[in-house]
Amino acid sequence: MSKSANETGQAAAWFAVDWGTSHLRVWAMDAEDRVLTQIHSDKGMAGMAPDAYAPELLALAEPWLPSSGSVDAVICGMAGSRQGWIEAPYLEVPVAPSSSGMVRAETGDQRLKAQIVPGLCQKTPADVMRGEETQIAGYLRKNPGFDGYLCLPGTHSKWVNVSGGKVQSFVTVMTGEIFALLGKTSVLRHSVAESGWNEAEFEKGVRQSLDQPDRFIASLFAIRAEGLLANLGGEAARARLSGMIIGAELAASRSAWSDRPVVVIGEGALISIYQAALTVAGASAEAFSGDEATLSGLCAAYHFMKGTPS
Amino acid sequence: MSKSANETGQAAAWFAVDWGTSHLRVWAMDAEDRVLTQIHSDKGMAGMAPDAYAPELLALAEPWLPSSGSVDAVICGMAGSRQGWIEAPYLEVPVAPSSSGMVRAETGDQRLKAQIVPGLCQKTPADVMRGEETQIAGYLRKNPGFDGYLCLPGTHSKWVNVSGGKVQSFVTVMTGEIFALLGKTSVLRHSVAESGWNEAEFEKGVRQSLDQPDRFIASLFAIRAEGLLANLGGEAARARLSGMIIGAELAASRSAWSDRPVVVIGEGALISIYQAALTVAGASAEAFSGDEATLSGLCAAYHFMKGTPS
Repeated sequence: MSKSANETGQAAAWFAVDWGTSHLRVWAMDAEDRVLTQIHSDKGMAGMAPDAYAPELLALAEPWLPSSGSVDAVICGMAGSRQGWIEAPYLEVPVAPSSSGMVRAETGDQRLKAQIVPGLCQKTPADVMRGEETQIAGYLRKNPGFDGYLCLPGTHSKWVNVSGGKVQSFVTVMTGEIFALLGKTSVLRHSVAESGWNEAEFEKGVRQSLDQPDRFIASLFAIRAEGLLANLGGEAARARLSGMIIGAELAASRSAWSDRPVVVIGEGALISIYQAALTVAGASAEAFSGDEATLSGLCAAYHFMKGTPS
Repeated sequence: MSKSANETGQAAAWFAVDWGTSHLRVWAMDAEDRVLTQIHSDKGMAGMAPDAYAPELLALAEPWLPSSGSVDAVICGMAGSRQGWIEAPYLEVPVAPSSSGMVRAETGDQRLKAQIVPGLCQKTPADVMRGEETQIAGYLRKNPGFDGYLCLPGTHSKWVNVSGGKVQSFVTVMTGEIFALLGKTSVLRHSVAESGWNEAEFEKGVRQSLDQPDRFIASLFAIRAEGLLANLGGEAARARLSGMIIGAELAASRSAWSDRPVVVIGEGALISIYQAALTVAGASAEAFSGDEATLSGLCAAYHFMKGTPS
């Protein structure tokens, strides 16, 4: 946890909270949506009992709570899942994200009112998101007329079709999780290094999956075999595997990036990798900070709830 | 280990040995290639030091060793890998399997001479096999004129192009390993049961991957989402996931099964699953016992080595 001591004496006007599977981030905000402080904790949803959420949030917020009256905490992420603090039922697409459906969570302290932003769901094909809807809302707050696809890469990448201020549809690709499972747990681990990179091998992998997407599952073992037969190095193998998996993700989302604008929302290294992969595919994408998107989206949700201009 | 005590007093003429990653099987054979006894052990290659192989094999073979002279043990599988007993370098395709390249391993006991069958390799695309080459040789010993594909399903499925008595080319698909990783370790584990089956969901999964093979990686998360949104049951999810992965394997090997005979080599349940998947694809395959193929292939290797008719 970073320091949450309040040396300014200024109370927060509200709190923005991103409560994911493995992390908790709290921003104490002033009345003009400026960040007074940002507090990290590793108390993510994983392994937390429902009654542990309120004490954890209160402990972090305490130095910034007002001496009288109450303030709001607007929370996005897995805290709103069925296994979280309290379930905030999904909104079904097409829908404007972070615009309705917030669920009150009881903090047991009248100084702090907690509100959880709901995730989004799609019936056919079945899909869900929790947390990304806030990043999407945050991006749309800054780019209200956007019409195209938002790509949010990660453990479970999302490709989000946005039009008319709404999420029209989306798809989840288990890119990061599959990369970790294959590279660290499968037989390929004997050939794949835990870190390191080789840009040419990455591009080779992307191209291979884009050229023959139907052979993706049958092309993975070659990474092990090249390690045995052709001394493929561990860093090269790691980059090739990453390229093959991201290439398969791009092949599956070809209709998204082939004729509409794409913006990749995330942080530095991952954005660069996706931009490089899209370049191999003959496309391009702008970048937008994932942290900025989250905070902006929580602002949007807060002001929607208060009925104040965002 | 099953009993290896020799109650007949008859010595073995030779030993057939299948030494895989997680198991060891030894057949004591008579001079007419009849099985005197079969001995199992869990002393597979995984975790065994090179100097542990000889004592393990001798302990199992001891009751069947001759009182004078020496006999051969013909060994296939991972015991011949770089991490095994002694490396038996791969033979490069195209090649007749189990026909050359056997490597002597020192048992330290002059009554038993151990010979390890080499695996096969392919330079482009890079691929390797160890153990399956003996099953292929065993099938060809019974069906010498076979021209088509042999499918050996499993943790690492092999699709083997056979013509003119030789393995012309082959490809490994990490089907079983990917099924286990996704079903037991990934986020899908929350939706996928550890056992159970649903034939209609299996066929649905096969069809989905055959129809849209380029969307395979983007279709997996729906199993989790349907569990959350539509109460997809654990057994249905398990069968669907299996169908999707085997369907992706079939989509990748379409050129194999679409216009040439296919024989699936393996054991009961797995063969049935692959035959059902091929039926969904509008194809068909004959079945051949994996155990019979292994033993027959070790016979072929033994007689090749001795210069006697197989």
